[in-house]
Amino acid sequence: MRQSGFPEPITNLINLLSRLPGVGEKNATRLTIHILKNSSEYSESLSSAIRDLKSSVKLCSICFSLSSDTICGVCKDSKRNHGIICVVEDPVDLIAIENSNEFNGVYHVLQGVISPIDGIGPDELKINELLKRLNDGNAIDEVILATNPSVEGEATALYLSNIIKPYGIRTSRIAHGVPMGGDIEYIDELTLGKAIKDRRDF
Amino acid sequence: MRQSGFPEPITNLINLLSRLPGVGEKNATRLTIHILKNSSEYSESLSSAIRDLKSSVKLCSICFSLSSDTICGVCKDSKRNHGIICVVEDPVDLIAIENSNEFNGVYHVLQGVISPIDGIGPDELKINELLKRLNDGNAIDEVILATNPSVEGEATALYLSNIIKPYGIRTSRIAHGVPMGGDIEYIDELTLGKAIKDRRDF
Repeated sequence: MRQSGFPEPITNLINLLSRLPGVGEKNATRLTIHILKNSSEYSESLSSAIRDLKSSVKLCSICFSLSSDTICGVCKDSKRNHGIICVVEDPVDLIAIENSNEFNGVYHVLQGVISPIDGIGPDELKINELLKRLNDGNAIDEVILATNPSVEGEATALYLSNIIKPYGIRTSRIAHGVPMGGDIEYIDELTLGKAIKDRRDF
Repeated sequence: MRQSGFPEPITNLINLLSRLPGVGEKNATRLTIHILKNSSEYSESLSSAIRDLKSSVKLCSICFSLSSDTICGVCKDSKRNHGIICVVEDPVDLIAIENSNEFNGVYHVLQGVISPIDGIGPDELKINELLKRLNDGNAIDEVILATNPSVEGEATALYLSNIIKPYGIRTSRIAHGVPMGGDIEYIDELTLGKAIKDRRDF
């Protein structure tokens, strides 16, 4: 609607940008006009960065996180504890855990969660690849299940803990509770219930 | 901060996208991951659309609105009234007025407003080009000043009305008042004062 009247190259970019998550048509128009007003160097580098993104980013062949090499930096790092695998849904979760600076093990990125409603079963995820890592005589001590605290994430964690059990490897789940800086008054009762049930001694 | 840990092609795109207005680093990360997960066709077309934008969009040589040709669609259109020129700050304002379907004249896009604080004087804008259009024996009946109702927009409108006066051409200013669907209770007193002062007979 709003874009009618713009020349075709502009409406074209507005349409493409509108398809990004959280970018409406009005926002896409603003971004397009901004790119238009900005320097040619900027639009050139933005264009190449988008073009090269898919071709230059691979999945690590061990943990399936995003990597520019066949094996990612974490899996290559000999200083890390390769005996603890933290299982996450997506690469963004891996980055979030990395930024917490609390984990020195390695990761396994499932590339999603089990979600029958979306037609995603265990075979659509990197679960067989995880079991292969446990099998391979890699001396794995622990698998931390760090899927999201959603219905699908919890179900996936439960599924994984069940199929890992026969390997005799310790499985753990990240703690649920009151977030740091959160306000007890405003925390939902499910979380608060977990926080009380899973309380720990001082 | 958050992006540490991502491979370089990803951080590169996150940094570029973060420079767009209203896109923070977290948002840029989300957009980047989305582009990465989307089809190659999408990233290819997005990349080309951005690359071609600046080269394929020109300013109309008559009214200085955005155009893919030397002369824009509005200026070319013989069905429009070329005797009424509506002066706007930016191409987006032109599109907004076009979408109101209330104006059948032609436009002149100043490419900004007079703003001494930003070092923008009359010579930085397309004001001489406007006067040239009034001079050229084009039989202009009216110039509508549709700059924004901001301090700079009002000052620019006043400045233009003064320099157009000697041409003996009618100048008008878009009406200020209560916006349609607005709530009188919540309209600022300046607007409400204007709305009462500029009231018109039923």
